[in-house]
Amino acid sequence: MTINRRFLLVRRPNGAPVAADFSLIEAPLAPPPPGKFILRNHFASLDPAQRGWMSDEPSYMPPIPLGEPVRATTVGRVESSACPEYAPGDWVMGLNALEDFSLVTPGGFTAKVDVSKVASPSQFLSVFGAVGLTAYFGLLEAGQPQAGETVLVSGAAGGVGSVVGQIAKIKGCRTIGIAGGPAKCRRLLEEYHFDVAIDYRGKTLQQLSAAIAAAAPRGVNVIFENVGGDILDAGLQNLAMRARIVLCGLISEYNNAAGHVGARNVWQLIVKRATMHGFLIADYVPRFAEGAAQLGLWMAEGRLHVDEHIDVGLENAYAAFMKLFSGENQGKMVLKIAT
Amino acid sequence: MTINRRFLLVRRPNGAPVAADFSLIEAPLAPPPPGKFILRNHFASLDPAQRGWMSDEPSYMPPIPLGEPVRATTVGRVESSACPEYAPGDWVMGLNALEDFSLVTPGGFTAKVDVSKVASPSQFLSVFGAVGLTAYFGLLEAGQPQAGETVLVSGAAGGVGSVVGQIAKIKGCRTIGIAGGPAKCRRLLEEYHFDVAIDYRGKTLQQLSAAIAAAAPRGVNVIFENVGGDILDAGLQNLAMRARIVLCGLISEYNNAAGHVGARNVWQLIVKRATMHGFLIADYVPRFAEGAAQLGLWMAEGRLHVDEHIDVGLENAYAAFMKLFSGENQGKMVLKIAT
Repeated sequence: MTINRRFLLVRRPNGAPVAADFSLIEAPLAPPPPGKFILRNHFASLDPAQRGWMSDEPSYMPPIPLGEPVRATTVGRVESSACPEYAPGDWVMGLNALEDFSLVTPGGFTAKVDVSKVASPSQFLSVFGAVGLTAYFGLLEAGQPQAGETVLVSGAAGGVGSVVGQIAKIKGCRTIGIAGGPAKCRRLLEEYHFDVAIDYRGKTLQQLSAAIAAAAPRGVNVIFENVGGDILDAGLQNLAMRARIVLCGLISEYNNAAGHVGARNVWQLIVKRATMHGFLIADYVPRFAEGAAQLGLWMAEGRLHVDEHIDVGLENAYAAFMKLFSGENQGKMVLKIAT
Repeated sequence: MTINRRFLLVRRPNGAPVAADFSLIEAPLAPPPPGKFILRNHFASLDPAQRGWMSDEPSYMPPIPLGEPVRATTVGRVESSACPEYAPGDWVMGLNALEDFSLVTPGGFTAKVDVSKVASPSQFLSVFGAVGLTAYFGLLEAGQPQAGETVLVSGAAGGVGSVVGQIAKIKGCRTIGIAGGPAKCRRLLEEYHFDVAIDYRGKTLQQLSAAIAAAAPRGVNVIFENVGGDILDAGLQNLAMRARIVLCGLISEYNNAAGHVGARNVWQLIVKRATMHGFLIADYVPRFAEGAAQLGLWMAEGRLHVDEHIDVGLENAYAAFMKLFSGENQGKMVLKIAT
């Protein structure tokens, strides 16, 4: 009998998740019932959004039920199938969970992927997955950057942020990236071609605001926001007239048990007649092929570079997930499950 | 020699303005130099925005210089003129100051007005001024309300809010107004035809949120925000998918010496893919005639009712201004200067 290791959420985190909020269990794997198939998960995406799904606050998806494995986008191969559209050996990606095997009902985000053209199937979790597509549609559709404008990206060394910066550059914008620590800031300049890198560590709100002002004396036209807190507030203090803020994530406050900080300087939206757009990639599913094709072309032309930070082993899921919040990861965080 | 009483800002308020931040002085009135004219101010508009102009925080206008009279939109008659376009007796409105007489340079917002068609020249400071036009363009252009949608208005008994609610109703929307105290809530229902009135006084954030949820079980499609703080946060907890938030003012925090509260629940913009637009009427100057004409038609048809709360006497400027923050005013706050 096959054993399925499953990384369960057993308690809702209060502030930063702790190891005891999760439990790695072993369960027998049953064959798929009619209409479903079993997916052997090879890679799982680790994303800040998962922290939100662990809470029971109303959100765009139901909370992960307690006692169930942590929801995650995965890519893997069909192990056994009781539905005609999926055959053993097919590569498939979808919204599954942190576990060796997922029982999948076709539909929703589940789709076959062609791994023959990519360097690694994990790229369907980074550049060709929600991360790359969030950067692509978030920046271009919600941000509407124009050539010559200045784009400010927070979390700029992360999976989404690094792609946003490169797309903005391709579109003829001046790019300013904010990240934590000198190593990440060096990557911003050397790998992702940001014009300016700002290290937020050790800076007060006013120092951060002054650093942005020095880098963008005429203000920023687009903010792509992944972080929130002081970083968002400093950005809001440096808006150009009619700026667009793409609100993609607020990782700085996901573990804040004391409540939401939000956008304290929202008054600046009035001063600069700026607009803040809440962005979620789920709205762009019908256009995924268009986005992925363009991202692939840029990759092939050497104009887009995507880093993946791959940790190995389901037993390391907690430690790997927490790197998103400590900032230890260097690129899109991925967990390799099948070794 | 004519004496000009002038209501000066002599100190930047720290938190709520106090009487000692101002000084009413008497100065001799000089004749206008070439190219300028002297306006006898009959009515002055008192607006929350003036509190912002008293601060030296960067904003959409330079701060009122210390020792100068408090900037205000006024309407009055030309007293004497040294420019050909304006003759003594002409009625004029413009961005002037709280003083008996203003020395005016033609241009900017200054414009002649035809008082023969209006009930009182003060209407150029309410329905046909920035207040009515902010409601008109803010709701219709930034808010884009559709018939059948639900519109939530904060500060709903105020100058802007009361007009927003009535326009939303004319456009076929369901309207929910938030105001302070039973008298204002009664006015919301009886005079401004709101479908639901919510009294925010004595309610916690969660109670306020629950009251909005009860009034709009499917969420609110448009928020017209004049207040901020708990009221904005409660609104953000009740957004319908793809809601639009027109950020027009944040009166709850203008006197907050401790710093900005902003929008703590800005995360909900992502959850609901909502958009927050900073709105300032100054962007719509070229379309003022269009807006004023439509507002006038609705007035003539009896579909739009605008209340003015007129206090009398420059010596009462401070007390009248502070009613904006205590909520004592019943309608658009106006100061009658010439008696």
